[in-house]
Amino acid sequence: MNISIIGAGNMAYFLATRLKKSGHCISCIYARRKSEADKLATLVNSTGTDNPSHLPSETDVFFFALPDLAIQEFVVNFAFHKSLKVHCAGTVPVEVFESKNAGVIWPLYSIKKELLPKVEDVPLFWEGVGQKGKEIISLLAQDLSKNCHEAGLEKRQELHLSAVFVNNFVNHIMTITAQRMQEINLPFKASLQPIIDETISLAMAGESARSQTGPAIRRDEGTMQRHLALIAQHPDWQDIYKAMSTSIQNFYPPVKQE
Amino acid sequence: MNISIIGAGNMAYFLATRLKKSGHCISCIYARRKSEADKLATLVNSTGTDNPSHLPSETDVFFFALPDLAIQEFVVNFAFHKSLKVHCAGTVPVEVFESKNAGVIWPLYSIKKELLPKVEDVPLFWEGVGQKGKEIISLLAQDLSKNCHEAGLEKRQELHLSAVFVNNFVNHIMTITAQRMQEINLPFKASLQPIIDETISLAMAGESARSQTGPAIRRDEGTMQRHLALIAQHPDWQDIYKAMSTSIQNFYPPVKQE
Repeated sequence: MNISIIGAGNMAYFLATRLKKSGHCISCIYARRKSEADKLATLVNSTGTDNPSHLPSETDVFFFALPDLAIQEFVVNFAFHKSLKVHCAGTVPVEVFESKNAGVIWPLYSIKKELLPKVEDVPLFWEGVGQKGKEIISLLAQDLSKNCHEAGLEKRQELHLSAVFVNNFVNHIMTITAQRMQEINLPFKASLQPIIDETISLAMAGESARSQTGPAIRRDEGTMQRHLALIAQHPDWQDIYKAMSTSIQNFYPPVKQE
Repeated sequence: MNISIIGAGNMAYFLATRLKKSGHCISCIYARRKSEADKLATLVNSTGTDNPSHLPSETDVFFFALPDLAIQEFVVNFAFHKSLKVHCAGTVPVEVFESKNAGVIWPLYSIKKELLPKVEDVPLFWEGVGQKGKEIISLLAQDLSKNCHEAGLEKRQELHLSAVFVNNFVNHIMTITAQRMQEINLPFKASLQPIIDETISLAMAGESARSQTGPAIRRDEGTMQRHLALIAQHPDWQDIYKAMSTSIQNFYPPVKQE
C-alpha cells in the first residue's frame, strides 16, 4: 500500500521502517520542520515535506504519528476523505477523525527512534471502524508486529492504567528503594536483583497471586510497625506502605499463612 | 571446619550443600523429625539426629537454620559455649546467643530446598561478634557466596524493608494488574512484559530516578481522575494509586516534563 506518515518522532520512525520492510511504499513524510521530515524520508526512500498541501492524494493510508493534542489540530483541515486515517495514541478515541475510514494502532512500549525495538513482538493494540477498516488495520498491525490485539478505547484506557501500575509505580518503588540502599551504603543491584528477578519471573508465569509473602499477608503487625518507624522521615513512603499493606490484607483472606 | 546444622529446612539445605562443596565437614544435622534430619544428612555425608544431646561437642560452628521464633527457644538450653553459633534470620539480633562466639549469615533470597539456587552470587549479609568472630563468619559467608556484605541488625532491618517494597509490593502490583487484564480479556504477559522488562532493566542500570514518566510526574490531573474512576470498584487500589502519585509528585519538582 501507499502510506504517508504525519510526524517524524519516535513512532513515525517505527512505522516507516517496519512498514517499508514489510513491502509497503512510504510515499511521504510530513513534519513541521522539513529537516526532520527529510531525515526519516531518506531512511525509507521517501519524500519529506513541511507543507500539508504537498501530501500525496493517492495515499491509501495516512498515519498520524503525533502527540495526543496535535492529532485533533491536524485533523481539522485534513482533506483526504477517501484515505484510511490511523492515529497511534492509546487514549484518543478513533472518533477524532469523524470518518468511517479510520483506525488506531497503539504500541504499549516505549519506542525510541535512536534505538528502535529489534523484537518482532512489540505489543500493538488496534481498532478499526467498520468491517473493511478492521480488516486493513488488522493487516497493517500484523505487518508491524507479531503481537497484535484488537482493543477499543475502553480497553486501551485500561491498558494505559495497567501500564501506570507496572511501569510508573514499579519504577517509583525502585527509585525510592535505590535511594534508601544508597543511604545505608549497600549496593542496590547486588543486594536486590535476585529477588526482583524472581518477583518478575513469577509474574510472567502467572504465579504472582499465589506467591505473595511478607508481613502484610501474614498479619505481622509488629514488623509492619517497625517498618513504618524506619521511614518516619518519609510520610509519603509510609502512605505507600500502608496502602499496599491494606490492599494485600483485603485481597487475601486472613487465614493464609506464609 | 566441623559444622553442625540445627534445622533441615530450605536454609539448612543451602548451608549443608554449599559448605560441604567448599570442603567443610558437616558433622551432624539436627531436626525435630529424625527422618527430615536423615534426608539432608545423607545428601552431605553426615549424621542425622532428633536428639539435641547427640550434637557433637567437637563442632566448630553450629548453624541455627531455624525460623525466627524457634532460635530463641533452642538457644535457651544450648550447651556448646566454645563453639561459634550462627543464625540465619535477618531481623533477629546476634545478641540472642548471649555469647561472644556468635554471628549471623542471612540470605536476601527466597531459597527453596527443592530448587536450590545454582548461582554463586546469592546475596548474603553477615555479622560477627568481635574481631575473630567477624573473620570466621566472613570466611564462611565467602564459602557460601561470592556476593557477601557485612550488615548489622539495623542494616538488615533496612534491607528487609527494601525487600518488602521490591518483592512484596511489586508482587501485589503484578497480582492486581494481572487480575484487571483478565477482566478485560487481554493477555497479561504478551501485553505488559516489554514495559515491565524495560522498567527492571532501567532499575538495574541505576536509571529509575531519571526514567520516571506517567500522569503523576507530568501533573496530568485529567488522566489521573479518569484512572481513579476506572478503579472505583476497588477503593484499595485507588488508595495505592493516590499514595504512589503523591509520592512521585513530591519526589520530583513540579517543573519536570516528560
